[in-house]
Amino acid sequence: MRILVANVNTTGSMTESIAASARAVAAPGTEIVGITPRFGADSCEGNFESYLAAIAVMDAVTSYPEPFDAVVQAGYGEHGREGLQELLDVPVVDITEAAASTAMFLGHKYSVVTTLDRAVPLIEDRLKLAGLDARCASVRASGMAVLELEEEPERAVEAIVSEAIRAVTQDKAEVIVLGCGGMAGLDEQIRQRAGVPVVDGVASAVTIAESLVRMRLSTSKIRTYAAPRPKTVLGWPLNSAGTAAQLQETQP
Amino acid sequence: MRILVANVNTTGSMTESIAASARAVAAPGTEIVGITPRFGADSCEGNFESYLAAIAVMDAVTSYPEPFDAVVQAGYGEHGREGLQELLDVPVVDITEAAASTAMFLGHKYSVVTTLDRAVPLIEDRLKLAGLDARCASVRASGMAVLELEEEPERAVEAIVSEAIRAVTQDKAEVIVLGCGGMAGLDEQIRQRAGVPVVDGVASAVTIAESLVRMRLSTSKIRTYAAPRPKTVLGWPLNSAGTAAQLQETQP
Amino acid sequence: MRILVANVNTTGSMTESIAASARAVAAPGTEIVGITPRFGADSCEGNFESYLAAIAVMDAVTSYPEPFDAVVQAGYGEHGREGLQELLDVPVVDITEAAASTAMFLGHKYSVVTTLDRAVPLIEDRLKLAGLDARCASVRASGMAVLELEEEPERAVEAIVSEAIRAVTQDKAEVIVLGCGGMAGLDEQIRQRAGVPVVDGVASAVTIAESLVRMRLSTSKIRTYAAPRPKTVLGWPLNSAGTAAQLQETQP
Amino acid sequence: MRILVANVNTTGSMTESIAASARAVAAPGTEIVGITPRFGADSCEGNFESYLAAIAVMDAVTSYPEPFDAVVQAGYGEHGREGLQELLDVPVVDITEAAASTAMFLGHKYSVVTTLDRAVPLIEDRLKLAGLDARCASVRASGMAVLELEEEPERAVEAIVSEAIRAVTQDKAEVIVLGCGGMAGLDEQIRQRAGVPVVDGVASAVTIAESLVRMRLSTSKIRTYAAPRPKTVLGWPLNSAGTAAQLQETQP
Amino acid sequence: MRILVANVNTTGSMTESIAASARAVAAPGTEIVGITPRFGADSCEGNFESYLAAIAVMDAVTSYPEPFDAVVQAGYGEHGREGLQELLDVPVVDITEAAASTAMFLGHKYSVVTTLDRAVPLIEDRLKLAGLDARCASVRASGMAVLELEEEPERAVEAIVSEAIRAVTQDKAEVIVLGCGGMAGLDEQIRQRAGVPVVDGVASAVTIAESLVRMRLSTSKIRTYAAPRPKTVLGWPLNSAGTAAQLQETQP
Amino acid sequence: MRILVANVNTTGSMTESIAASARAVAAPGTEIVGITPRFGADSCEGNFESYLAAIAVMDAVTSYPEPFDAVVQAGYGEHGREGLQELLDVPVVDITEAAASTAMFLGHKYSVVTTLDRAVPLIEDRLKLAGLDARCASVRASGMAVLELEEEPERAVEAIVSEAIRAVTQDKAEVIVLGCGGMAGLDEQIRQRAGVPVVDGVASAVTIAESLVRMRLSTSKIRTYAAPRPKTVLGWPLNSAGTAAQLQETQP
Repeated sequence: MRILVANVNTTGSMTESIAASARAVAAPGTEIVGITPRFGADSCEGNFESYLAAIAVMDAVTSYPEPFDAVVQAGYGEHGREGLQELLDVPVVDITEAAASTAMFLGHKYSVVTTLDRAVPLIEDRLKLAGLDARCASVRASGMAVLELEEEPERAVEAIVSEAIRAVTQDKAEVIVLGCGGMAGLDEQIRQRAGVPVVDGVASAVTIAESLVRMRLSTSKIRTYAAPRPKTVLGWPLNSAGTAAQLQETQP
Repeated sequence: MRILVANVNTTGSMTESIAASARAVAAPGTEIVGITPRFGADSCEGNFESYLAAIAVMDAVTSYPEPFDAVVQAGYGEHGREGLQELLDVPVVDITEAAASTAMFLGHKYSVVTTLDRAVPLIEDRLKLAGLDARCASVRASGMAVLELEEEPERAVEAIVSEAIRAVTQDKAEVIVLGCGGMAGLDEQIRQRAGVPVVDGVASAVTIAESLVRMRLSTSKIRTYAAPRPKTVLGWPLNSAGTAAQLQETQP
Repeated sequence: MRILVANVNTTGSMTESIAASARAVAAPGTEIVGITPRFGADSCEGNFESYLAAIAVMDAVTSYPEPFDAVVQAGYGEHGREGLQELLDVPVVDITEAAASTAMFLGHKYSVVTTLDRAVPLIEDRLKLAGLDARCASVRASGMAVLELEEEPERAVEAIVSEAIRAVTQDKAEVIVLGCGGMAGLDEQIRQRAGVPVVDGVASAVTIAESLVRMRLSTSKIRTYAAPRPKTVLGWPLNSAGTAAQLQETQP
Repeated sequence: MRILVANVNTTGSMTESIAASARAVAAPGTEIVGITPRFGADSCEGNFESYLAAIAVMDAVTSYPEPFDAVVQAGYGEHGREGLQELLDVPVVDITEAAASTAMFLGHKYSVVTTLDRAVPLIEDRLKLAGLDARCASVRASGMAVLELEEEPERAVEAIVSEAIRAVTQDKAEVIVLGCGGMAGLDEQIRQRAGVPVVDGVASAVTIAESLVRMRLSTSKIRTYAAPRPKTVLGWPLNSAGTAAQLQETQP
Repeated sequence: MRILVANVNTTGSMTESIAASARAVAAPGTEIVGITPRFGADSCEGNFESYLAAIAVMDAVTSYPEPFDAVVQAGYGEHGREGLQELLDVPVVDITEAAASTAMFLGHKYSVVTTLDRAVPLIEDRLKLAGLDARCASVRASGMAVLELEEEPERAVEAIVSEAIRAVTQDKAEVIVLGCGGMAGLDEQIRQRAGVPVVDGVASAVTIAESLVRMRLSTSKIRTYAAPRPKTVLGWPLNSAGTAAQLQETQP
Repeated sequence: MRILVANVNTTGSMTESIAASARAVAAPGTEIVGITPRFGADSCEGNFESYLAAIAVMDAVTSYPEPFDAVVQAGYGEHGREGLQELLDVPVVDITEAAASTAMFLGHKYSVVTTLDRAVPLIEDRLKLAGLDARCASVRASGMAVLELEEEPERAVEAIVSEAIRAVTQDKAEVIVLGCGGMAGLDEQIRQRAGVPVVDGVASAVTIAESLVRMRLSTSKIRTYAAPRPKTVLGWPLNSAGTAAQLQETQP
């Protein structure tokens, strides 16, 4: 089976590392295809960037020219999963939800350790909407920006471990979730240091997507995620010649 | 003061009727400017369309060439308000939240009557995120599509009244909220028929926006809605020549 | 339009300062009338005093000899708003709810800074009942008694700022609500010191009351706030000659 | 021990029947004293009447000339218990809370059957504040006014049984709570007809009050229910000559 | 009346002290019978031990050869109460729920002080299921193992008082619940030291059981706690000769 | 890898069909071992039976003589998963939680269709404890007893489909969960009839268990699910000669 793993930012090297994490856990026979949006921010750290990413991921996934069996949206705490579910017939798994869901099989409470403080409310909101917040002990910020994770991996590990330990001792978390797609691959180091299971969202989402495909389950189309009604949509897909022309034309 | 009232779909006549509702309640001295997005669906009735509208509204508002004092986002149950709050220093008021907030001053419980059944979960989710759901008795669908509201206003009133009465008698609502920007202006007819106060989101949002401006209050910039960090954003604003070029270039 | 702004305690100077705050934000053409209860405590700092104030405010408002368009109940966290809604046909706005409602348009979470620690549970309870607690980060006590706010305004500002900063840094509040009618007028100083929007309940309530009147909206009379059923009520209104006589008569 | 059982309305015959129910379950050696407020409505069926009752019960209880060991407030869904707790050192038990608390020992979910529809939100609110709502399946109105319970006991039983059966079959209640002090004494008939345990609030509250006294437990005075701070309270107690004089004096 | 007070562990001396606490508060005419399970752990400090205790208590209670009027399950935070309710027609009162229920009549919020940190989530879960968690400020561990309470009572009091004071000052608890059957009898010392009411679950449960019996109330048999359906149950009761034989037979 | 799939009742044919469902979805290389408890009820339909099953499953799993990589507890809504997690180092997956967790990736809300009405509260309680109830639209009973599912599969399908359709149309479920281990294998028929995705707990749990093993994740041992403390446990394991002897000895 083929699973598209969609990065939410335009940084190709991050797509690579996310895809590598996905491949490390994928079953034999699963092909992982990393997808990078063609527009948007080089890292998502706020609502504007996240909303733009939502559309950019829909654009990139629906433009993918080959068939595929499932999609993993690899941005932690980002918008857009519901839109993809409407546009596609195959399962869509968001790493925020996949990681929380996995963590809940491992301990009484889990905490998320993410990047910047400003990302915390976005993650809290996504977990609340997903109905996966009841056993979330806390969402903590390591203070590392997304792109710093790649540039300074050692400092990143220190910063994440430090918050993970606070989550365990102060917030009573028993499991740590890595709250950024860019943290994929750091789980083992952090587990050793924090002494509790550490869940990586990308790995979790890939195994869940594989399982859904194996069980022949996909998004319910009966109501919330039914395909969009037929209607006039100006400027979509965004890479159509029409859009480009129209957007230029409408410039003041 | 000048308030931008942003429609979320590309149907200009709907922008007109929304702006008319806004003007009907605006204080003397308030200028209402209706804004229509340059791309997106001609009506928003699902997540894909709503996410696209979120970006389209941000594009339209940030492209507006004159100064303004507040923005009203006039889509009921739609995404995007948080992004606008990051991009702007002036207050942003979403009609979903404005209407709920207003309804709570008028009765013990309120119900929303919206368009299609598929819109119900979006509205429920937005109210939950806004923390305004505790006194929401129900969100009910009238079965009218957004554009049908304009085309068949009499049937629309019948359908909305019918659900409003069910909300009052079965769900114990004491106030009805009109759950679509396109219902602006129907409040008085429905109030007479349903026998309870009927709240229009556009009117509510305009008065709240005016009040915030008058009290010199605007979005807190300390955390969640801080301005986006400086970074590379490909293809934004979407109407830049660069975007058009880049999008065409990346076409398969 | 005329708005009655009802103080909940018997301290006339506090009524004056509340009315002044109300006037500072009222629209041209709005007349603000400050009302002082004829019985009750000189400050409300607990349940007994608050229940007595509830009745005293109802007594004072229903005794007001001229017509009026709306009532603002200017006690933070106090009882009684529901009773006024039954007795009146015009809108009734409680400052506790008005301030919370306003704060929610300005940031992801808000905190209330009030007077004494013993007032905290009353405020928490009123916010819970109003369904406005989901985004309340904390209710914090400054340790200042109500009457000390007037006597020692500088110390009050210091104490409030100090708790406001704790709310922002520890509880992740992004907006501060002033949790006492007696703090009206301190908002600007505290905003400058705390670096986040500061919401004054009296100002918020006045603008909401004006908006409701302008939208021709008032309390739903269909169920919870229907007028009291016709029945024998001994000793009401409390200023009737009958009451005085009857109460004396029944003295042991 | 002596327990004051305070009716919330001014109807003496209702005080009698409440006291009789209390005596039927009281332990040997417990003296039950029925208390009737000196002012207020002849039945409490809304917020205004309930707030007035809150003060009237405080007035009556604090005027009681002999020592007592506990107080039962015998109005279902009424205001005021918190004020009594501040004014007294002995335990105060509200029948709304006593009945809910008792019902939870008897089945997975309970429903309340009360008098008029307009009383339902008051009861829901009191249960929510008390934190006893999580296992409440529903609050249902029998349509009987409070005073009709006495006048037409047979019709009352029919109406209550009918709603009790709906609660059991439709709302999945396993226990029925009688939601009005005036229903005291009807429990046995209703239990036989509905086939589930039926809890009377007055009986429950009396046994709880006795138990608290026997365990030497009373209201915590550390924070919420500390005695009122020493301050000027005009017109209290309401039966003082001063009040009468003052109230007359302030008449327009 | 006769009340069985079932210890959840196999330590007979603890059964004795629990029964003594029960007798200290029981009404004249109430016979308290302490019951010790015939199998299970000598103290319950985790889920495995608690589940085993659930069955051991059912085994012991259903084997009790004389009639009885009520059962108190005297393990704090333990499993099993629901099973007993199915097997018996008389009321069953769990001390976890009895204590929480009692504490809620005494203050705005209560905290539980228990033994080991690992017991905290069990207690939190039982309170959540019982719907008695809304006013629980915290569950705190004293760090004392169950059997250490008996061995080192002075150190136990110190450790409990220390957490009780933290609960009052930091978590805003106004009442302390002793979170272990083995703490029965320590309430008075802790109350004096902590300055707030201290609730013992065993005493609370006994008075509630007595009250239910006096009011002729018992478990609703209509749904959740209906008697088990007639069916083949291998190896039950566990003390049957058959079980012993069968279990030996199936040994590898 | 080897996964133990533990039936909760003593009916061997049900263990067979559960194991068959597990094998149908297991990855190549996964060995599924069906486990039948040696004591307990031939079907679990209430709390007593469920608590007995909890212990019987722990007894059976810990007696299993070969190594294994994960355990699936295949009783829907049953007790005991937490105990197994303490006793084992390998992952434990409960089908109630696995199915809910899976369903949440497929639609906005899900409903469970189970056997008898009396099982509904058990399932609701397990979902609440697991924090997986926020998006559960309803738990509905088909009226089929557990053993009838095997005896009358056609009637079972009709009864389940009928409730599934009610869940979709009345409760707004978008996904159906089969709420009994004995329903394993019926998913495809029901999906075709109900028109929405149908989730089987056994299949879900097996894929989740495989994924956890593949990701090298297991139960956190830091707090709630730490191994039991070393202590005297009488009569455990239940198949020890000692238990048999001891239990006989203690017989009256």
